[in-house]
Amino acid sequence: MEALKQKILKDGRALNEQVLLVDSFLNHQVDAKLMAQVGEEFARLFANQGITRIMTVESSGIAPAAMTALGMGLPLVIMKKSSSRILSDDTLQTQVHSFTKNSDYQLTVKRKYIHPGDRVLVIDDFLANGEAAFGAARLIEEAGATVAGIGIVIEKAFQPGGRRLAEAGYKVISLARVAKMAENHIEFCD
Amino acid sequence: MEALKQKILKDGRALNEQVLLVDSFLNHQVDAKLMAQVGEEFARLFANQGITRIMTVESSGIAPAAMTALGMGLPLVIMKKSSSRILSDDTLQTQVHSFTKNSDYQLTVKRKYIHPGDRVLVIDDFLANGEAAFGAARLIEEAGATVAGIGIVIEKAFQPGGRRLAEAGYKVISLARVAKMAENHIEFCD
Repeated sequence: MEALKQKILKDGRALNEQVLLVDSFLNHQVDAKLMAQVGEEFARLFANQGITRIMTVESSGIAPAAMTALGMGLPLVIMKKSSSRILSDDTLQTQVHSFTKNSDYQLTVKRKYIHPGDRVLVIDDFLANGEAAFGAARLIEEAGATVAGIGIVIEKAFQPGGRRLAEAGYKVISLARVAKMAENHIEFCD
Repeated sequence: MEALKQKILKDGRALNEQVLLVDSFLNHQVDAKLMAQVGEEFARLFANQGITRIMTVESSGIAPAAMTALGMGLPLVIMKKSSSRILSDDTLQTQVHSFTKNSDYQLTVKRKYIHPGDRVLVIDDFLANGEAAFGAARLIEEAGATVAGIGIVIEKAFQPGGRRLAEAGYKVISLARVAKMAENHIEFCD
């Protein structure tokens, strides 16, 4: 998505080979107009695939996921991050490791907001190692629903998440794929 | 806002005199179309007041705040909740008490996303005791900016937050004001 790539080059900042700061338009300050364009692009890319529900992981995925839900006329479900285990029959939960924070959290969703037969589009702001996306997929499949697709705003394609998800059979579309970074230097794939 | 009140009556659930569950359309599952209407309503209600920036507190406020930012053509800034103090010159932080969770958190924003002279509209999903809104106002004023208004999706008007904020001089507009609740019974103000 060209407008997104241009925004990353203009306002994003590579701190080093690993860390990309995009908190000026994606995850602290949010460019709502760009997020609406992102939502429309996901709606176009995942049209006609029988999707019934959008899901994301709090909290940086919420803005692009809400715009996607609006564009597709579907409900959004926000999976919550909890530090403690919830033992309850009406809740699905799985442990996810965050490499960024070097800690684990419990990804949680109420059963009543995901149904057997649902075809779910997972939207998230970033894909690096893929831990959050795999966690979301585990909860969706435990509910008897299907992961119809995974839409990512920015993929760090030099990390293994995209390849691991594709190998597991998931359809992943990333709007911007970063091939390589160095301090103040960003290169996209293609 | 009539569509919101009807949605609360249809899909909300009063557990008792204090607890209103709206997680089927506002804070776990999200009705994106209703949130877009909420955003348009805030844009209308706070038009022509020189507002320069929308701010919210993660994470339930993000969807309505993103739609408001889109409706007003303004940037959104998400204040983060942190469990630990961050000591850094580029960050503003204040302690907020959550009555819901009976614990404190550190509300945090990077200085570069709020400027002296900004006129800020604070959007949040719920107003009860007003602790989060007062915390947001402290950070905004510490940055040398002004709280131009506070837009709330649902106010529990039987709790003191709305009155306390008004007494402190803030302009608060709530789209739905709940006067009174009992198990499976909800009454609005007016």
